Amino acid sequence: MELLPPDQIAFQRMLDTIRRNFERFGFLPVETPVMELSEVLLTKSGGETERQVYFVQSTGAIENGINAVSDALDATDGGTTIDAERVRAATRELARPEMALRFDLTVPLARYVAEHEHDLAFPFRRYQMQRVYRGERAQRGRFREFYQCDIDVIGKDALSVRFDAELPAVIHAVFSELDIGAFTIQLNNRKLMRGFFEAQGVADPALQALVLREVDKLDKRGEDYVRQTLTGEGFDLPAEGVDRIMQFVKVRSTSHADALAQLDALGEGSESLREGVAELREVLELVRAMGVPEANYALNFSIARGLDYYTGTVYETTLNDYPQIGSICSGGRYEDLASHYTKSKLPGVGISIGLSRLFWQLREAGIIDSAGSTVQVLVTQMDAAHLPHCLAIASELRHGGLNTEVVMEPSKLGKQFKYADRAGIRFVVVLGEDEISKGTVTVKDLRREDQFEVARGELARTLRVELAQAEALQNT
Amino acid sequence: MELLPPDQIAFQRMLDTIRRNFERFGFLPVETPVMELSEVLLTKSGGETERQVYFVQSTGAIENGINAVSDALDATDGGTTIDAERVRAATRELARPEMALRFDLTVPLARYVAEHEHDLAFPFRRYQMQRVYRGERAQRGRFREFYQCDIDVIGKDALSVRFDAELPAVIHAVFSELDIGAFTIQLNNRKLMRGFFEAQGVADPALQALVLREVDKLDKRGEDYVRQTLTGEGFDLPAEGVDRIMQFVKVRSTSHADALAQLDALGEGSESLREGVAELREVLELVRAMGVPEANYALNFSIARGLDYYTGTVYETTLNDYPQIGSICSGGRYEDLASHYTKSKLPGVGISIGLSRLFWQLREAGIIDSAGSTVQVLVTQMDAAHLPHCLAIASELRHGGLNTEVVMEPSKLGKQFKYADRAGIRFVVVLGEDEISKGTVTVKDLRREDQFEVARGELARTLRVELAQAEALQNT
Repeated sequence: MELLPPDQIAFQRMLDTIRRNFERFGFLPVETPVMELSEVLLTKSGGETERQVYFVQSTGAIENGINAVSDALDATDGGTTIDAERVRAATRELARPEMALRFDLTVPLARYVAEHEHDLAFPFRRYQMQRVYRGERAQRGRFREFYQCDIDVIGKDALSVRFDAELPAVIHAVFSELDIGAFTIQLNNRKLMRGFFEAQGVADPALQALVLREVDKLDKRGEDYVRQTLTGEGFDLPAEGVDRIMQFVKVRSTSHADALAQLDALGEGSESLREGVAELREVLELVRAMGVPEANYALNFSIARGLDYYTGTVYETTLNDYPQIGSICSGGRYEDLASHYTKSKLPGVGISIGLSRLFWQLREAGIIDSAGSTVQVLVTQMDAAHLPHCLAIASELRHGGLNTEVVMEPSKLGKQFKYADRAGIRFVVVLGEDEISKGTVTVKDLRREDQFEVARGELARTLRVELAQAEALQNT
Repeated sequence: MELLPPDQIAFQRMLDTIRRNFERFGFLPVETPVMELSEVLLTKSGGETERQVYFVQSTGAIENGINAVSDALDATDGGTTIDAERVRAATRELARPEMALRFDLTVPLARYVAEHEHDLAFPFRRYQMQRVYRGERAQRGRFREFYQCDIDVIGKDALSVRFDAELPAVIHAVFSELDIGAFTIQLNNRKLMRGFFEAQGVADPALQALVLREVDKLDKRGEDYVRQTLTGEGFDLPAEGVDRIMQFVKVRSTSHADALAQLDALGEGSESLREGVAELREVLELVRAMGVPEANYALNFSIARGLDYYTGTVYETTLNDYPQIGSICSGGRYEDLASHYTKSKLPGVGISIGLSRLFWQLREAGIIDSAGSTVQVLVTQMDAAHLPHCLAIASELRHGGLNTEVVMEPSKLGKQFKYADRAGIRFVVVLGEDEISKGTVTVKDLRREDQFEVARGELARTLRVELAQAEALQNT
């Protein structure tokens, strides 16, 4: 995804909004190098991830690798048989680079926290907004390079479930300010799910995963299909249990009180269920205490997320009017961030926004437009002899905090106006002999389509006020 | 270079300051993908650059490459002789990946402008602040991954020399606000240099480069050494000419008037010299018209920059009190940005700040410190029962624009204060029974080491005022 400036500006504003809100909630910035040691990146990941990794080699390393293959061949070229094994080994070496590009921000976070453990204060609250890389075939809306915007709170040894309540508050702040329409933060809890499934006789986690995968097809294939599959060969679940499962995953709360009632309705159950219910109840109460409107969060017992990773609260966020976009911000609670890199136990909770994909989807759905220019004022040039005046005015405007471009090469005034209009620059400053002698300038407001004359000393202040008014209007 | 949060915050603030000033001068943001086609990246660069490139391969591409080598071996394994050439060819294929990481922002800009030529308005003013990658051996202050902050103005067919005057104004704005000490923007012009050297009988550009390389040793080896070399075997320049060259490269202007006088003193000379003088004179006059103080710019006839690339104005910027740091921002005017990618002629002028290295050098020299936290307020928790109150106060503070962290896990108040102090958080909010009943909070100001009580409704406003005052004080 490579953008032209108007889209890049819109994208940058989204990044800025996200960052501002992450900082508002006390998260600290971290950036990690794009390359990690391959052995670090691939500790955890399975085959699927590994196939999507980009490996990196410097020219020097490649040269060494080729030389090794070449040596292996040379050693036998004139001889009787070729040492194919040696050639193969050298080739494998060449094909197994030491470094790779990060494919998410979680593995680098784990490595970072393990490496700097003694210099960090826990609970460690970090945000990270960087690009990640996956060797997927490029296709519409799927990018090989894309921004992720992550926050995580990492505890040492333990981390109270209260932190699980902060993340919905951050999500609410971010998406309210991004102003992309009504949204719902969907909450569930893995312990609650486990407890419920155990009660239905589905105790094995792998089997739970398989059942959930079938249940996920409800929307597409319908109830009958899913019921037949789960009661049929392979699963052999009792019809009654399947009905309860299908009832369960359809639960969506409609208000705060309804969410609490839904939790009550689950009854006592196993310890796992009780724990999950208690955690969700605490999270719900604190989310409300943090001022998140109840329209913006709901229980959704079908949310599972990565079954092998998340252990408690899980989140997804959807746009009410665009369910087809899917989750725009997901995450959850995990038991141990960095078990591969440190002996310390580091439980955490986090969320992630895949901004490149989201931006693309929002554009496709017509929810966001290109932004106006970052340039707020164009100082035109009527006569080359006036250039020093124009430059001085631009300098005053910049000191006054206004993003200002000056026309450096004289051309017809009409052409300069047209340029401003096309570029999305709102104010055009005109300076003729008349204005110079009076110490004024003429300002044309291309948005409101009017113009006014103002004393030079008042220019920056006047335009600042106009822009502040426009911004205030937009926010109401 | 991987930073802990306090340094990351300081670094991020520098990035923000640079970006704000780039936008202030009407430059538009561009971001390009980290990977470019190898053939695009390596069109222009010589052997040295090529050896520093990082190549990228997805797991799939590597597998295909290995399979090809393996097939080449298999085809002959059982036979009489091995087709070593086929194995070598397959190995070379494996070792010549399609993609590589950008090693600067200039080549991606050239590709971007050529690709989007018909969608861009010229003169195209872009800024780009991204990381670049060079496969150097990592060493102190040299990084394999580092930020570059570039601006360029690209013209179509032609670009007035007036634009060359804008860049020193941007440099001045950036480094004034970065507040890292007195600095001087050094100006020179390649046409002027060429004209001067031609007059000394050094007409061949390659010879000029060799002479300049010797002259560059003046500081280290002394005048006698350089004079001997240039008059000696190989160069065979007349002693008088060498003296004139050494006089020339020592020219540094001491004021605006002196700069103009130094240009006058060069006399008439060749057309190239006259052009260079006229360009520098225009640049100097416009730099002044843009309000850059004359203490911040000077002629320096020893500045050459990339001899094969720059064709007119060239810039370097140095910190007056830290000459050993070298140039902190360099660039110049070039004839044609993208001749490899488009038939259009695209002259331009640009500068670049290598921020990772600069940040590291400023830290080493003790010029910048770690920043305070991005978190401005810590809301403490005296009693778990108060948590909903604490969360509500935090919510009010965040709505009031303050970056606020809440203590979620209760602990001793002393420990909470200590945490705030260590983390660099300035304000600590304390809420006891007493305050809750009165509708107030107690605020401890860790910087000023005092405390005060304030009505809850006034809290956000009060802290905003305190922070604004501190910022105003810092800027005076």
